[in-house]
Amino acid sequence: MKLHQHIQKFTASGDEIVQSIIQKFTCIHTRKKELLLGEGERCTDYFYVETGCLRLYFVDEKGAEQTIQFALEGWWLTDLDAFHKNAAAAYSIQVLEGGTVMKINKPALDELMKKYPVLENYFRQVYQRSYSAALYRFKTLRMSKESSYDLFESNYPDFIQRIPQKMLASFLGFTPEYLSELRKRKAGKK
Amino acid sequence: MKLHQHIQKFTASGDEIVQSIIQKFTCIHTRKKELLLGEGERCTDYFYVETGCLRLYFVDEKGAEQTIQFALEGWWLTDLDAFHKNAAAAYSIQVLEGGTVMKINKPALDELMKKYPVLENYFRQVYQRSYSAALYRFKTLRMSKESSYDLFESNYPDFIQRIPQKMLASFLGFTPEYLSELRKRKAGKK
Repeated sequence: MKLHQHIQKFTASGDEIVQSIIQKFTCIHTRKKELLLGEGERCTDYFYVETGCLRLYFVDEKGAEQTIQFALEGWWLTDLDAFHKNAAAAYSIQVLEGGTVMKINKPALDELMKKYPVLENYFRQVYQRSYSAALYRFKTLRMSKESSYDLFESNYPDFIQRIPQKMLASFLGFTPEYLSELRKRKAGKK
Repeated sequence: MKLHQHIQKFTASGDEIVQSIIQKFTCIHTRKKELLLGEGERCTDYFYVETGCLRLYFVDEKGAEQTIQFALEGWWLTDLDAFHKNAAAAYSIQVLEGGTVMKINKPALDELMKKYPVLENYFRQVYQRSYSAALYRFKTLRMSKESSYDLFESNYPDFIQRIPQKMLASFLGFTPEYLSELRKRKAGKK
């Protein structure tokens, strides 16, 4: 979903206001595997995915990439803490599927938030939804692996189709071998 | 921190406005072990902890209580999804330490949000902080158990002191035996 539609959907704002807001964003065309943010770099941008898919990950003590969050169409992604503190990123952001992404830096966003109070309402809803999804994810992490996969599959069928196995396994807290076994077992049952 | 101080700290609002907002809340005195919300009940209230401590948990497939979130002073707690959808709760909320809690129901909160736009700004910040902490927690869940405990201890020393071992273990994704062993090992090193 285009960002202007997303803001209109959440806030029922007039076309003119939303157009003025959108003008402050930069539209970028992303390529598969491109790095939009590197761990340790200063985190300056906030990304909204119009088309394609991004992932947020870090490299653990053993040198393995651990994926924390995906962003498909209609999701925002950044290292939120580092973005708001203008600090070094604790994660990297990589393009999984190329597409169109809208980005904005912190001073520009701060200015927009001051000028257009409707954005307070918009981001309140965006964060509320994100935090609510995070609580749910903490719950699934405490369930049996199979139940947690079933719930994920029924809630986010798109992810299962589009995300590479290895990253999906990391996101779910499984080993790639376990995920592959589980999927084979499930395919056998169908 | 009292709720009116919390709102003032986040939004720099005038005393009069904040007093008008606070009047719509109900102040309750909580007792240890009291249940503020039961899994499966309709989730009607949102809680702000002024003093004491609450926990959000569910009962897993094996009948064990799994703690998803704690709320010490200055934190909000509810089953966010159920609260906003006026639906049955997927979690219970129990008092860990008695104290003072401010609560509000959904229609009253909706009315306040409409009347006082400053609350959009306030809750945008509350959710932003909560979501940011959730991202960080997903990261620690992907680290080694010992690193994840060390980070938790340095970021939230209060929790380690105040939360019963068994619940802390569940929150960290450890078995109670592992947590107890780890703490003994750490105490030995000091």
